[in-house]
Amino acid sequence: MKIARVIGSTVSTVKDPKLTGHKLLIVQHASPNNELFGDPFIAVDTVGAGEGELVMVVEGSSARYTGKTEASAVDAVIIGILDSITMDNEIVFQKS
Amino acid sequence: MKIARVIGSTVSTVKDPKLTGHKLLIVQHASPNNELFGDPFIAVDTVGAGEGELVMVVEGSSARYTGKTEASAVDAVIIGILDSITMDNEIVFQKS
Amino acid sequence: MKIARVIGSTVSTVKDPKLTGHKLLIVQHASPNNELFGDPFIAVDTVGAGEGELVMVVEGSSARYTGKTEASAVDAVIIGILDSITMDNEIVFQKS
Amino acid sequence: MKIARVIGSTVSTVKDPKLTGHKLLIVQHASPNNELFGDPFIAVDTVGAGEGELVMVVEGSSARYTGKTEASAVDAVIIGILDSITMDNEIVFQKS
Amino acid sequence: MKIARVIGSTVSTVKDPKLTGHKLLIVQHASPNNELFGDPFIAVDTVGAGEGELVMVVEGSSARYTGKTEASAVDAVIIGILDSITMDNEIVFQKS
Repeated sequence: MKIARVIGSTVSTVKDPKLTGHKLLIVQHASPNNELFGDPFIAVDTVGAGEGELVMVVEGSSARYTGKTEASAVDAVIIGILDSITMDNEIVFQKS
Repeated sequence: MKIARVIGSTVSTVKDPKLTGHKLLIVQHASPNNELFGDPFIAVDTVGAGEGELVMVVEGSSARYTGKTEASAVDAVIIGILDSITMDNEIVFQKS
Repeated sequence: MKIARVIGSTVSTVKDPKLTGHKLLIVQHASPNNELFGDPFIAVDTVGAGEGELVMVVEGSSARYTGKTEASAVDAVIIGILDSITMDNEIVFQKS
Repeated sequence: MKIARVIGSTVSTVKDPKLTGHKLLIVQHASPNNELFGDPFIAVDTVGAGEGELVMVVEGSSARYTGKTEASAVDAVIIGILDSITMDNEIVFQKS
Repeated sequence: MKIARVIGSTVSTVKDPKLTGHKLLIVQHASPNNELFGDPFIAVDTVGAGEGELVMVVEGSSARYTGKTEASAVDAVIIGILDSITMDNEIVFQKS
């Protein structure tokens, strides 16, 4: 899974019926130190994540294996909000 | 899912039978500000997207999970037309 | 799906039994203007594509969803021969 | 599968129910000589790997095919601890 | 599928039970002219490939579709030994 930060949201009225009701957030990959990198993309939110939060994103076919996205045409889903990241016994990220 | 813009279309007469009837569009990844990047590729249209529109593209196995592409040999499908994108409480893209 | 050009072929005698009978072509990604880029790779041909032709390649799990590659250990398959590509109402590629 | 080194861990309280009980480690791809490269990401540990160990990571849909992650929304799982790597008949990595 | 060359092997004692008995080789992507590029990774051998040989590697979910890796947690498998590669009617690689 990827570390990512929620940086926005998008609205789509004309869309595949199975996507109805899903919150579509704009996310960007992040380092363990919460530095953004790579190209922003769209992920379905399944955990109530808010803008600015560091989250865990699952990509590819496994994005269909949450309770809320089963058999949906989605390839990126937020499956967790990160509380903390530890490296070398040092906390490098702590949710505020 | 990826933000992408429809930039063209392609025609293929000799093709896998399951692809018959699908509209094949040329798309390119785009930033939330509607700037193109990366290499153009082919996506099946399932929502009636037109050239120039900003869309949401699902890639990989989940491209087979729309109502129109079930069990088809497709790995990129347009599943939504984007109305707007908001970042930092500011609208950075609005469908015209 | 990706735009690609057939640039060669390969022969493999010792291989997974499910691959027997498949024509293995060397392809390379191409732009809508038929310019090659990226690293050549191997794709199973299901449409009778010939060297030099611009084709449509499906990658990943969907490569197993053609009539000829069902449940095979393949991750790249040629599923169509491209007749033409249009961008900005201009034909940028036309099969000769 | 990828060679990777465990470089940290992360905690997520609010997460998809199927992830409960999984140890979430931060890993980074490594060369056969144990040099790190690429962007750190999150992998579920299924073999009791510890920080600093060189491991084998499976990515994508196959991450759901271990005994401990079946049908879970995971796309990266540690499936083995590497004892040694040999290249040109020379041991280039040996677990200490 | 990718052209790759076998450049080494790895041993893992503590691993997912489904991986028991699989030979784990270190491979690296190669051009049709047998020049190596990219980062070495681990592939399960299903065809008796030896170090130095040019092989065909299937990646992703299709790696589970050989007779020897069904439903295993593997994402890269050697499925063929390449005998020759032809480009522009010229043999650019011939197995010695």
